[in-house]
Amino acid sequence: MDKVKMEAIFSDSARGMKPSPIRELMPYIKKPGVISFAGGNPDPNIFPVAEFAEGASVIRKNGADVLQYGATDGYEPLKTFIANWMAPRMGRVTAPDEILISTGSQQGTDLLCSTLINPGDYIIVEDPTYPGAIHTMRNRGANFLTVPCDSDGMKVGLLPEIIENCRNSGGAVKFIYCIVNFQNPSGCTLSTERRRQLLQIAGKYDLIVFEDDPYGHLRYDGVHKPAMFSMDADERVIYACSFSKILAPGARVAWIVGHRDIINKMVMIKQGIDLCTSVVAQALVAQYCLDGYLDGFLPRIVDHYRKKRDGMAAAFKKYLPSFVEYDVPEGGFFFWLRLPGVDTRKLFEKAVERGVAFVHGRAFYANEGGGEDRLRACFTFAKEEELEEGARRLRDAIMDLS
Amino acid sequence: MDKVKMEAIFSDSARGMKPSPIRELMPYIKKPGVISFAGGNPDPNIFPVAEFAEGASVIRKNGADVLQYGATDGYEPLKTFIANWMAPRMGRVTAPDEILISTGSQQGTDLLCSTLINPGDYIIVEDPTYPGAIHTMRNRGANFLTVPCDSDGMKVGLLPEIIENCRNSGGAVKFIYCIVNFQNPSGCTLSTERRRQLLQIAGKYDLIVFEDDPYGHLRYDGVHKPAMFSMDADERVIYACSFSKILAPGARVAWIVGHRDIINKMVMIKQGIDLCTSVVAQALVAQYCLDGYLDGFLPRIVDHYRKKRDGMAAAFKKYLPSFVEYDVPEGGFFFWLRLPGVDTRKLFEKAVERGVAFVHGRAFYANEGGGEDRLRACFTFAKEEELEEGARRLRDAIMDLS
Repeated sequence: MDKVKMEAIFSDSARGMKPSPIRELMPYIKKPGVISFAGGNPDPNIFPVAEFAEGASVIRKNGADVLQYGATDGYEPLKTFIANWMAPRMGRVTAPDEILISTGSQQGTDLLCSTLINPGDYIIVEDPTYPGAIHTMRNRGANFLTVPCDSDGMKVGLLPEIIENCRNSGGAVKFIYCIVNFQNPSGCTLSTERRRQLLQIAGKYDLIVFEDDPYGHLRYDGVHKPAMFSMDADERVIYACSFSKILAPGARVAWIVGHRDIINKMVMIKQGIDLCTSVVAQALVAQYCLDGYLDGFLPRIVDHYRKKRDGMAAAFKKYLPSFVEYDVPEGGFFFWLRLPGVDTRKLFEKAVERGVAFVHGRAFYANEGGGEDRLRACFTFAKEEELEEGARRLRDAIMDLS
Repeated sequence: MDKVKMEAIFSDSARGMKPSPIRELMPYIKKPGVISFAGGNPDPNIFPVAEFAEGASVIRKNGADVLQYGATDGYEPLKTFIANWMAPRMGRVTAPDEILISTGSQQGTDLLCSTLINPGDYIIVEDPTYPGAIHTMRNRGANFLTVPCDSDGMKVGLLPEIIENCRNSGGAVKFIYCIVNFQNPSGCTLSTERRRQLLQIAGKYDLIVFEDDPYGHLRYDGVHKPAMFSMDADERVIYACSFSKILAPGARVAWIVGHRDIINKMVMIKQGIDLCTSVVAQALVAQYCLDGYLDGFLPRIVDHYRKKRDGMAAAFKKYLPSFVEYDVPEGGFFFWLRLPGVDTRKLFEKAVERGVAFVHGRAFYANEGGGEDRLRACFTFAKEEELEEGARRLRDAIMDLS
């Protein structure tokens, strides 16, 4: 008997599969002494560890439910909390059959793709956008149409032509994916006027809008803009949010809200994927929220990250050469730098030698080309006292290349 | 603007999707006063609630890691524990890159399908088998070849003809799915001799073997049979096990072990599905195990379920008409009854009226036909004192139909 012939047994999609680009950077990023502006991780120093651990009382109190198989659509007390807590943003208290708890927003994206995408269908995404979403969407067979962003977010005025061109060449466009607030990686926020336009265009072309909002609660300046979900009379917006950035990504608890027919299909698919999100994790998160800690800690988290955002802005202003272009983001996790004439993949190697890591811009573009002179710098994960030293090292790396 | 045209937007696979048959039974099963022999749920009364909740100490102690994003392949302390704890069954201490922690075994099945199955490929399954696996496999585009079981498990002698027939008509067979111990639903265990034969046949036809073993630790009589994984010189066995039946399904923590090339592909796909299994849940499970509670409680759980198995056996002997056929299972969760001449779908309606629920046999057959006169009765979930009353009600329902 022979060993298994590996390449022959894989499915076509698995055979061609590559790890996500951020994953490939990990060995470099984790080098000792390297200051990481790379991964989009929260600051572990502001995790409300003691308060979250207190939630274990719910296991003691309600173990028969919490340790048992749960409903695929989610743990009822958590769903109820979210429906009420989110009502001001959603414009109403959404119904239980409009909400699905997912194992991170990553899973929400995956389930939505399985629900809507036939291999070869098109998703419209921002250029640049979150590589984890591209990875998932591609795994489910999607192709991409890209729309550039400016400081007001996706240039939605370009959508009609993009959609019509695709349809005229026989392509099926299924949905528009938009990270509405403090976009990953660009930091920009879709303006209220563009939100309105985007909904109109989606209506005209009968498209679903996937409003991904993991950073929406982390605004450091200015006022919140209304969620597209709240402006949508057609029930064509699917809205996703998560506890990853406002509490703890290790819980892997997020939620997705939308038309009940779509949510119902997602529930059926999720049943095959993991039956339900960890009830233990959901119950701990619910207890934390119901004990009032979510509302109690969120302003503290926002203050903490505002300081770090300001710290990175000051450090970049102090150290980076004047040809480097960027906006200071009003919220979220990221600075998005443009270094005209610099290949940021080459810069990455120099930077890691110098002891600072980022993600090169190329990783954020769904199709070929784009972002060669860009980089994303995350200010939440590195320690406050590392921000200045990281900026200095980045400057040195830029100088190495000049 | 119009509302979204729902049916038009779904993917082909989502459009035809049905909830799993067990899910469809839920409204009936949850009727107040109904004794449930239906779902394959553990007994909530033996969940080690206090000991599991103690594990929250790991959140306090190690919150910066436990609340952060985790490695996609799993929480390192848990992987190490499993590798050592399972070594006697696996035949060796498996390496870290051979183990993936999954969000329940359901996810392990789903990931394996995504890794190996192109739409239209065939999976060989037992007839009958676990409906949750059929649901997942079908969602990933699989077709099924079925092999009947007897009291020694899958009739593996039939495999060569089945495989050759499929290949001769141009079909691609990818793997053999086998619930080796106390099979769901039939309760049978694959004999050691047949395990050897199955591996030989898999080698001859170059097939992967998916050895699913959620019940393997729950043996009430007799001696454990060697895992196929431990008998496999070719690295063609993928072995899955779970904490769902030996600790708590609400944790959604399971593991899958196999050839590193396959595991590596599954990790890449999992990254797109949920990034990682809840680190919080993994850490609580790991702490419970490392504190010695898993080994401490397992004999108690086995004793508890043995009593319930005996309770159902005695109740069935006392009440069921003599024409009803069944074996008393040596482990696991299920009795698998045959009622010659009785349509168990019709019986289900009568039974629910009488106040007892089961799963009708048809739900366990991957292809058309089979199981019409069969039913599965789970003895773990109902209270011990309900077993006799449940059997009495089942008898009455059978009489109603006669």
